[in-house]
Order: sequence, then C-alpha cells, then structure tokens
Amino acid sequence: MGNTFGNLFRIHTFGESHGPALGVIIDGCPAGLSIDTDFIQAELDRRKPGQSKITTQRKEADEFEILSGVFEGISTGTPISILIRNQDQKSKDYSHIADKFRPSHADYTFHAKFGVRDYRGGGRSSARETVARVAAGAIAKLLLKEYGITANSFVSQVGNLKLGKTYQELDLTRTEDNIVRCPDPEAAEQMIELIDQTRKNRDTIGGIITGVIQGVPAGLGEPVFDKLHAEIGKAMLSINAVKGFEFGSGFEGVTLNGSEHNDAFYEEDGVVKTRTNHSGGVQGGISNGQDIYFNVAFKPVATIMKDQESINTEGESVTVSGKGRHDPCVVPRAVPIVDAMAALVIADYLLISKTNRL
Amino acid sequence: MGNTFGNLFRIHTFGESHGPALGVIIDGCPAGLSIDTDFIQAELDRRKPGQSKITTQRKEADEFEILSGVFEGISTGTPISILIRNQDQKSKDYSHIADKFRPSHADYTFHAKFGVRDYRGGGRSSARETVARVAAGAIAKLLLKEYGITANSFVSQVGNLKLGKTYQELDLTRTEDNIVRCPDPEAAEQMIELIDQTRKNRDTIGGIITGVIQGVPAGLGEPVFDKLHAEIGKAMLSINAVKGFEFGSGFEGVTLNGSEHNDAFYEEDGVVKTRTNHSGGVQGGISNGQDIYFNVAFKPVATIMKDQESINTEGESVTVSGKGRHDPCVVPRAVPIVDAMAALVIADYLLISKTNRL
Amino acid sequence: MGNTFGNLFRIHTFGESHGPALGVIIDGCPAGLSIDTDFIQAELDRRKPGQSKITTQRKEADEFEILSGVFEGISTGTPISILIRNQDQKSKDYSHIADKFRPSHADYTFHAKFGVRDYRGGGRSSARETVARVAAGAIAKLLLKEYGITANSFVSQVGNLKLGKTYQELDLTRTEDNIVRCPDPEAAEQMIELIDQTRKNRDTIGGIITGVIQGVPAGLGEPVFDKLHAEIGKAMLSINAVKGFEFGSGFEGVTLNGSEHNDAFYEEDGVVKTRTNHSGGVQGGISNGQDIYFNVAFKPVATIMKDQESINTEGESVTVSGKGRHDPCVVPRAVPIVDAMAALVIADYLLISKTNRL
Amino acid sequence: MGNTFGNLFRIHTFGESHGPALGVIIDGCPAGLSIDTDFIQAELDRRKPGQSKITTQRKEADEFEILSGVFEGISTGTPISILIRNQDQKSKDYSHIADKFRPSHADYTFHAKFGVRDYRGGGRSSARETVARVAAGAIAKLLLKEYGITANSFVSQVGNLKLGKTYQELDLTRTEDNIVRCPDPEAAEQMIELIDQTRKNRDTIGGIITGVIQGVPAGLGEPVFDKLHAEIGKAMLSINAVKGFEFGSGFEGVTLNGSEHNDAFYEEDGVVKTRTNHSGGVQGGISNGQDIYFNVAFKPVATIMKDQESINTEGESVTVSGKGRHDPCVVPRAVPIVDAMAALVIADYLLISKTNRL
Repeated sequence: MGNTFGNLFRIHTFGESHGPALGVIIDGCPAGLSIDTDFIQAELDRRKPGQSKITTQRKEADEFEILSGVFEGISTGTPISILIRNQDQKSKDYSHIADKFRPSHADYTFHAKFGVRDYRGGGRSSARETVARVAAGAIAKLLLKEYGITANSFVSQVGNLKLGKTYQELDLTRTEDNIVRCPDPEAAEQMIELIDQTRKNRDTIGGIITGVIQGVPAGLGEPVFDKLHAEIGKAMLSINAVKGFEFGSGFEGVTLNGSEHNDAFYEEDGVVKTRTNHSGGVQGGISNGQDIYFNVAFKPVATIMKDQESINTEGESVTVSGKGRHDPCVVPRAVPIVDAMAALVIADYLLISKTNRL
Repeated sequence: MGNTFGNLFRIHTFGESHGPALGVIIDGCPAGLSIDTDFIQAELDRRKPGQSKITTQRKEADEFEILSGVFEGISTGTPISILIRNQDQKSKDYSHIADKFRPSHADYTFHAKFGVRDYRGGGRSSARETVARVAAGAIAKLLLKEYGITANSFVSQVGNLKLGKTYQELDLTRTEDNIVRCPDPEAAEQMIELIDQTRKNRDTIGGIITGVIQGVPAGLGEPVFDKLHAEIGKAMLSINAVKGFEFGSGFEGVTLNGSEHNDAFYEEDGVVKTRTNHSGGVQGGISNGQDIYFNVAFKPVATIMKDQESINTEGESVTVSGKGRHDPCVVPRAVPIVDAMAALVIADYLLISKTNRL
Repeated sequence: MGNTFGNLFRIHTFGESHGPALGVIIDGCPAGLSIDTDFIQAELDRRKPGQSKITTQRKEADEFEILSGVFEGISTGTPISILIRNQDQKSKDYSHIADKFRPSHADYTFHAKFGVRDYRGGGRSSARETVARVAAGAIAKLLLKEYGITANSFVSQVGNLKLGKTYQELDLTRTEDNIVRCPDPEAAEQMIELIDQTRKNRDTIGGIITGVIQGVPAGLGEPVFDKLHAEIGKAMLSINAVKGFEFGSGFEGVTLNGSEHNDAFYEEDGVVKTRTNHSGGVQGGISNGQDIYFNVAFKPVATIMKDQESINTEGESVTVSGKGRHDPCVVPRAVPIVDAMAALVIADYLLISKTNRL
Repeated sequence: MGNTFGNLFRIHTFGESHGPALGVIIDGCPAGLSIDTDFIQAELDRRKPGQSKITTQRKEADEFEILSGVFEGISTGTPISILIRNQDQKSKDYSHIADKFRPSHADYTFHAKFGVRDYRGGGRSSARETVARVAAGAIAKLLLKEYGITANSFVSQVGNLKLGKTYQELDLTRTEDNIVRCPDPEAAEQMIELIDQTRKNRDTIGGIITGVIQGVPAGLGEPVFDKLHAEIGKAMLSINAVKGFEFGSGFEGVTLNGSEHNDAFYEEDGVVKTRTNHSGGVQGGISNGQDIYFNVAFKPVATIMKDQESINTEGESVTVSGKGRHDPCVVPRAVPIVDAMAALVIADYLLISKTNRL
C-alpha cells in the first residue's frame, strides 16, 4: 500500500534508488490528450540531480521511455507507463551502512516494518522516488493546460533567509532564472550563498516552498474527508523531508478575528471574486475560483558529511560516517516535485467534478 | 466522494446540520472488541454543543444508537453503524441566507459545485458533521487501548495567546479540567477570558491544537504517498476550519542544520530510542516508536454576529447579517475531533501493518 | 471490508437480520436528481417478505426513512442515507441454533472468520441484508431513467421448469402480473405450483433469473479487470444463494464456432447495430449499445423444515431441526435485487464514462 | 480505471499488444518472500504464444525483468515491478483494419468509449495483456505456497467435447502432459484433434476451464459484496473471451431441492468437513476449508480467417478479411491465466483475513 496516488487520475509508482529502474503508471488520463514528450523531459530536467553546484553530484540523465497508453502522440485512455532507468548508482558507497541505521533516515523504520530492506541509497525511501512523480505530474500539467490551469511553486525560504514577499509581489516566470528557484534575484543570490556555505560545512539546511495554483474553476473539491486542501496537504506531506503544510492564511491566520479574516464576496464582470483571499482559494474544501496558495516546510536533509552516533541492526552503538552524494538543501530540486503533486491533485479533482451533477 | 476515511479501518459518514440525523458506518473494526457505550457517549459529550459559555448555545444531547455490528456488547466484524439524531435545529434561523453566500463559508462553493444546496446551518459543510467522526473515533480509541496506544490533544494557542510549553512539560491528564481544554490552568484562564471577550465583541478568534499520540510501535506507516504523517495531516486538514498542519520540528525546523536536526539513535533496555525527537515519531513516513506530536491551526470561525458584505445567488451585492448560534472559537470543541481523527488513522495503519510481512 | 459496492456511484450497507435496523449510504449520486419516494417504496415492496404464499411469512413493512442528502425532494450531491428498521424479528426462534452450524449456511464460516457471530437469523449473512441493496438500487434506477436506461429481470427457471423463451419473445411489462415474477402466464402458474408443492414438502428449490438492461449507450465499461460484464457478474454473484452467472451466449456459446458466434456490425439510420447479439451487449468489457442480458443461478435455500446432520461449535455431532420462516424458493423475491444490482453497476459506470475523454 | 486488481495484494497492469512492452506492478506483497525467478518464467512459458500447433504462431520469448521490490532474491515489501518487452509485433498486419471494426472484437467499443484507439492487434484489448496477469499470479502462487495453498485448473470442455469427469476423478498433476492441458489423455487427444481441425477450417471454437483451489483455510472471504466466490467470479469474467462462471453446484444446482443440495457438516480428526461439497468450498461468501472449484466458459475467439461483414469508423459497410496470427481456441493457453487470477484473489483475501480479529 502507499504507492498509489489519486482517485480517477491515478498514479502507481515503483522503484528503488539503486535498483535497475523507477517508473510510474498513470491510469485514468482522459483519451485524446497530446503528449508532449519534450515537456516531460524538461520537467524531469528541473528535478534531476547534478544540475548545479547546490545539488547532489549524482549524475542521472533521467531519460524516460513511454511504454504504453500513447498512440501516435495521443493518449488512448489506457494506462500510460513511463520508465526511467538508473544509471549512476554507486551502490558500494552504501555497503558501510548495510547494517547501520542512519539518524533521521528511514533505515530503522523500514527495518522495523518489513524486516528486510534494500539499504543502497535508502532504497524505496530515497527521494529518487520522486522522479516518477515528476514524470506523472508532467502528464497532469499537460491535461491542466487544456483547462487553463497552472501550478507554479518557488523557494520562499532557506534556513533563516525568508523571502518576505507574497507571491503577488513576484514575477513567477522568473523562478527558473536561478539555480535555487526563487523568483527574486537578490534573495536568490543570498539563498544560493547560504546553501553553498552549508555544503562546505558538510552540513545541510531546510527551507520553504510556496505553491500557487491558478485558473482553478470554482467547484473542485470534495466535502468532509477529501477536502481539496486536505488532499493537496497530503500530497505535499508525502514528499520526502516535508514537515509542515499551510494554505491561505495558514498558521498566521489563527491570531486574526473572524471579522478580519473573512473574505468578502463581490461580483465583477459576471465573475465572483473575494476582496481578500485568506481562504487560499478553498472554502469548505472546495475551490472558490480564487488563487490557491500554500507553504510547504522541508527539514534539512538527514545525510550530512559528518560522523554521527547511532545503532546497528543488533542494537549496538555505532558511528555513522557521512558518505555518498546528497543535496545540501532539498528545496531547489523540490520545486518541480511540489508542482507535480499539485497538478496531480487538481487533475484528479477536475475529473471527479465532471460527475457532480445530473 | 469524500465521505469515506481510512483503508481497512474505514468509516463512511452522512448527515446535514439541520437534517433528521447524522451517522457513521465503521467498517473493518476487528471482531471481538468490547464496545464500551459509556465511553462513546463521554467522547460525544466532549464535542457536543452547549457545553460551556465559550461554545455555541445550540442544545444537542448527541445521544447515539448503535444499529449494527455489535452483539452482546462485542464487535462482530460486520459494519458498526451509529446514528445521532438532530434535535435542536432552528432551521428558520437560516431562511434569511437561503439565497445568500456567507463570506468564508462553504455556501458559495457548494452552490458552484452542486447547483443545489441545503442552506440550513451550512448543511453538510457544517462542523456538526464531526459528531460522526467522534463517534467513530471512540471505537478506534477502544481498539487502540488494546494495544496501549493513546491519542491526547490539547489547546496550545488561542489568538495571540501561545502556551509556550512543550507537551512534555504539561500534565496531559489535566486537559479536561477546564472548558478551553488547555492543560495549563493559568494559560487556560487567559484563553477562556480572550474567547469570552471575543464572543462579547460579536466576533470570533482562531487557535492551535497540539496532538500527541503515544505508544505507537515502530513500523506503522506506508512508504511514498501514504506516509503516516501525510495521512494524519490529511485527517487534520479535513476538519472544518483547519488551515495548517505540522509535525515534529515543523515549520521551525527549516531553520536548523541537519547536524542539529538529526535524531541520534540509541538503545536502552532493548528498546530503540532517539536522543531528540525532531522527527516527531515518524521517519520516512513510518513510525519509529517515539511519540508522535503535531500542531493543527484553526482559523477564526466564519460566522460573526456582524453585518458583512457579500453577494447572493444572482450575483447581486447584499448584506449578510450575523444570526444563528455559533462558537466564538472552535478549538475547545475541536480537541476530541483531533483525537478522533488521530485514532482513526492509527487504527487503520495498525491493521495494515498486520499484512507487511510473510 | 466487503460492505461497499461501486466506485463513483458507491453504496455502503449495514445491518443484521435481527438487529434494530438495516440501511445504506449512497455516496456519489449526482446533485439535482428528483427523489421519488413512492418509487423507492414500490421497489422495497417487490422485495419485502410476506408478500405471497410462496415467500417467507416474516412480516416486515420495510418502510424507509431518508436521513440525509435530499433537500426539498432533490439530491444535493451529499451522501443519501436510508434507514429501514426491523420490526418482526422473532429472535428466540434462533436460540436453538446459537451454538450449531446449519448446513450450507454461513454460520460456520462466519464463526471461522470472526470467532463471534450474531446467530439470530444469520445476522449479517441473512438475505435480509438485500433490503439495503434494493433501496440503493431504486436511487440508481431513478438516475438511469434520466438517461433512458432500464433494468428488468424475470424468473426464467424454477427447479427443472425452464421457461424456454428468450427475453425478446416475452412481454417484460407483465413480470409483476404474478407472484413468481415470470412474464409468461402459463409458465408462471407451473412455477408457482412447483414452489408451493416444495414448500408443503418442507423443502426448497433453486431457480434462474434472467436480467435485461436496455438503453445503455455504447462506451460504458472499463478495460481489463473492471470489464462491464465482470462487474455485473460480481454484483450478481454477491447476492445470497447465487451460484453462477453467464451473459450473452454464456455457457452454451462454448460449443459454437467463431464464424457462428461473431456478431456482424451494420448501421441503420445512423445507429450502429449487430445482426446477432451473442456478445450480450458487451465487447471487450465495454457496452456496444445492444441489449445486455444475462442469467443468474440461485441454489435452493439452505433452510429446510427437516432435521439435518451437522456439528456444533465444539465440533460435536448434532441435529439441526428446521424452524423459522424462510422462502421455499428465493427467485421471486430476488428479481428486484437483481434489478437493483444491475442498476447500481450501470449508474456507476455511467459516471465513470464521463471522465473518459478530454 | 480498470487496470488494478485486488485490495491488499494488489496489481496494476499496463501495455498494448503492439506497444514496446507490457508489465505489472505488484503492490502489497509481504516482505520476506523468496522470489523464484525460474518459477515465474515457467508460468509465463505456459501462457506464451507459439508453444504448440494449436496456439497462435506469434513468437514471443516472454522473458521478464524485475525492476524493483526484490533485493537479494527476497521481496522487500515495496512494489515489485515486472517488465515484459514485445518482440514479434507485426503491426502492419493490422493496417487493413485501422478504420474497421472487427466483429465481436473490442474495436468498436474502444472507439465508442475513447474516440481514439491503438488498432494494432487490438491494443489494450488484446489477450496479450494477460501476460502481466500471469507474471503477477506467479508471485501470488509463491506466496500461497508458503501457506500450502494451490490453484490448478484444466481444460474440461472444447466445443461439444465434454470431459465428463469431476476433478476428483482426475490426476491434476497430468494437466501439463499435453498441449491442450486436459489431464485425461484420451479426452485430450480428441480435444487437440478438434482444435486442429477447427484451425484448418480457418475457424475457432470455445471451451470450458475448470479451476480447483485447494488448501484454503476456513474464514477467507468478505460478507456481502466482496464474497470470495464473487471476487473469483469477477477475476475470471475479466479474462478475455469469458462468458460465464459457476462454482460448486453452479447452474446444475438450481434443479435440486435444498435437502439434496445442503452439505452436512461433520468433524474428523478435529477437522471440520462436509459430506458433499455443492457449496464449492464457499458458504456465505467465506471459505469453509473444503476445495473451491468452479467452471469458466470461453467463447470462440473472434478472429477467424474468413471474410466477415462489418462497418468502418464512418459507419459504412465493409468486409473484414481474416489476417494476423491467432489462437483457434483460447482455453489451452488460458489455463495458467485462470490459475493466476485464482491465486491473486486468494492471496489478497489471505492478507485481508489477517485483520479480521482483535
């Protein structure tokens, strides 16, 4: 369980960090969609390792092969399967931790759960798993494009460096202009410097990604348990290293009075709008047509290039020494993952919404 | 869709605020569990309206009837259905908003989604819906008790009043000692005062609930999309008025370095422990045996006793005037709801975990 | 598990034969559907016990209460919950089998599975459970009516009495003209006589119901595992006492050559048709617009008014003596159940089909 | 939808007849299972095309690659992905039917549903899809072996040639002794002759496979909708060309009286048994520990080497001429598919049963 996401636009992923391949089946993509393979590759490239000095130096081309579900460039309604082969595994980098549990990794918990584990690079618990999400998310984005919906996220905080601007104050088309994926050039420079310094310190640092979904029509979302923001929240919390999620006014909003927080409705040119958007585009779990925006908190990467205290599978005290190739900060490469998960949720709820009324 | 929660320990709820009844089917509860009806009622009483001066004055006994699945006091493995009839509907309180959209309510979004809606008291979007969650959560708690697992949450912030203590510094058995459900008596008094003042101002205020789940064995949770904390997060985000969720180090954790954030493992008396618990009891989406703790942010209740600008179903500008009976702050009554949702997730993942190994 | 049916038009049922009530939640019914309560009652009346001399003499009015999801006579898109209270339980009729396993009943298997069981009237395994299916099926039929789709089944065999006519040779509007629900008056008379004689012999007899679904547009059904006929088959096989299912040419079709069996396509007045319909309206698991027809085999009811050899919960040899009120033949009352399950499948697949294309 | 089977032991398949590859993700296989790759290949070999004169002459080695979920020969609890590449596509064999609908194929219905289709070899509707089922079924069989459960099916009828023996009268270890997979050598010879003659006539013929599942403990199965036999039935009906399913006494059983049909319980050496097994090992949808047996009816293959009347995508009358490589009778190669589907159901229900009791 746990390798499937979505209801009608649904994905199933597989693959380990150091296994032969990773991949995804996208089931439920409507027939008739043009599958732009260049776009899929571009999305994968945004996530791929080795893309800059502030990411892991593992080299993976992350080229993909579509195995099914597309005929003459068009989706056929049958499952679209996408395969990405691993190329630059250095599995022997991990032999020293075969019987050790790295602190704050999933080594111990996988062992506790399954009794066996593929220890190489964290196996299934590695963030390498997200390559499949991004491939699937690219298909979802192609579908959303047909409906005029976009998902754009960006880095809004690294360590203590907080961007301090709302998404409306930024030009989101500039996110890809720099390697940290912050649309504010000055803040970006500082963030890059902080990450690079952290890397040199053989340490890691956390950060925040702000997501913005625009063009969502009113009426998407399910009452009660599958509220739109709850599903987006789960989608984000399922990304490796995520520790928190808030949307709209978020944690700050708790200090407000209702009279300050409520978003007054008005109509303009036949379109329903709200004067403020503390709701973050979702009311009662259903989209209201305004922008959906949210923050996702990422902890510092657990793998550091320093010796740490831990135990082994026998429960004996051991020292885990830092090896392998890892990101000093996860957020630059997590931006396309956040986009992908956002797109997958919206694509799914878009399909569900087609069945709401007689 | 959206009225079902859980995989193996699974609930289906129904009911509107001003309909004849609300209820829940609990499907997948293992056979052989003693069903303590007094406990179920006690849990419902913690959530019920009219319990104190800082809650809504709607009067509901919230007495329940078990319709199936229990024979001679023992669960039989078949669906347990629990019915709670509404008694104190004052539906005509709502006739004035039959064609108006209250700001930051779900009136507009339900209308946009379904084209029709039961406007009385918000219909299905009312927090009255959570009575079914608490009834089901009580069954889940009875199951967890058999495994030594508890879920205890408490109010840690109201408006700007922040408790400023960790859960370890508090005596969680004292949460029920006061009407705001904060285990620190002094902070509780201040919070009650703030809520009462807000109520007198005909306004509302937000707050934060901290949840603590203890006794969870290592190994619960599913890799990738259904990570334990992601499912807890979704569960919490699905509660009315919730705007944010964080666990372990949460949003604060992003400012730390990995070397500070990592939780070193050690073994004591044959039990695996961690020196710190920034992970919040979950690593790689799977429980590690340490306490699971998290924060849930609730916005101020949307219904205020003041006139507000809005539109009607025709898109015309209207004034919505505050009427009806509502909570000035949702968090005191949300404590048992947070507990219920936490218990439902753990009960579900506990059953799933029975199938992990050969 | 096992108490939910359907994907988008989805039902959850609960209730035991001798518990306080049975019921169903219908989740996913589109908003805007007029809910004709007279029709629901009429469907329940077709299934209810005590309706004629050839059915059980248990007396249940099977009156229902809608608890949610309908406002001013219209479905709102939220879960529709329907409650049917038990009235004529004679639970002490069952005290003599509290620790005995009736042959070919579910007593032993429930005991083996759950360790405990509600032995009164078979508890959850009783065909009384199907009252919830018929209530839900009535809603599904109301939905299908909007699309011009009907589900009509009839009794085509009782014991060795085989109707020997195809559904095209019959006037299906006459099914309700007699108590055995066979649209051929002469055959009906013989069947009634056979059932009545069997009843007098304190025995039971099996039979076959033929189902016909008309007006289904081409394109409903899912490739591979959820083929339309596979889902209909599962729906039928899930009905108490069913032992077999075939559609189109069925078991007879295996003796044909492909050249005889294939259904040639032609177009008439812009409508695609087939010259024969061995396919039974489904090709490759997807409807082709022709009539869907199928047979469902029901075994003789297990409860007979004769003494039988068996064992008790201790494994000791015992005699089970026939008591209680039971049907001598299940098929007359199973006709509305077959219709209900057929309607539920088609309603579900109809909703799914709305998401197939861009 | 429709490409997933199972609840806890769950598979997701993909792939078209003439696409680059087919495959399956097996999610939920317990950790710790030895994965015998020779066994998987042997199962695939039983299904593969070109294995004898009475099967299609398409040549596929059907070699597989495990891409994930297995480490050092042991299942890790993460998704097991298996890939089978197509090798002997002769796609241009199909260009003549690109815009024509072959009678009794899924060409028309896929077109009606999706608007587009991969016409080469039937695309996703081809029985080539079942290679993924057999690969997954092999894993399920390995799991069942650990519990002493076996699934063995055999051909019991081809056209009018009926075996006329029950499975108890046969030596099921001899099924693989001949190319038609009938354990009775004499009957097998006749069947082979009939199929070969049919092939020479450029025609096809139907048949029946009898399945036998042994060693299933009492208590597997879910009440109401997911009855064990209903799920087995759906599994079988989902196989290409299947038109009917019956278990235990099946369609014949309807002619019996309850007093003849009931299976008396007795205990022998502490084991509960039944004197007869009309129930087919399942009572009330739950296994009773006796053998589970059933029949599956397969229609004659739709592709015949003769000219047939049909229409094209424009609705014009056309002649479809027989080309391509196809089986004259599907049952010999369907035996491993029936086994695979049976094993998948039992494996799934076995895992579910672990959560039935406290």
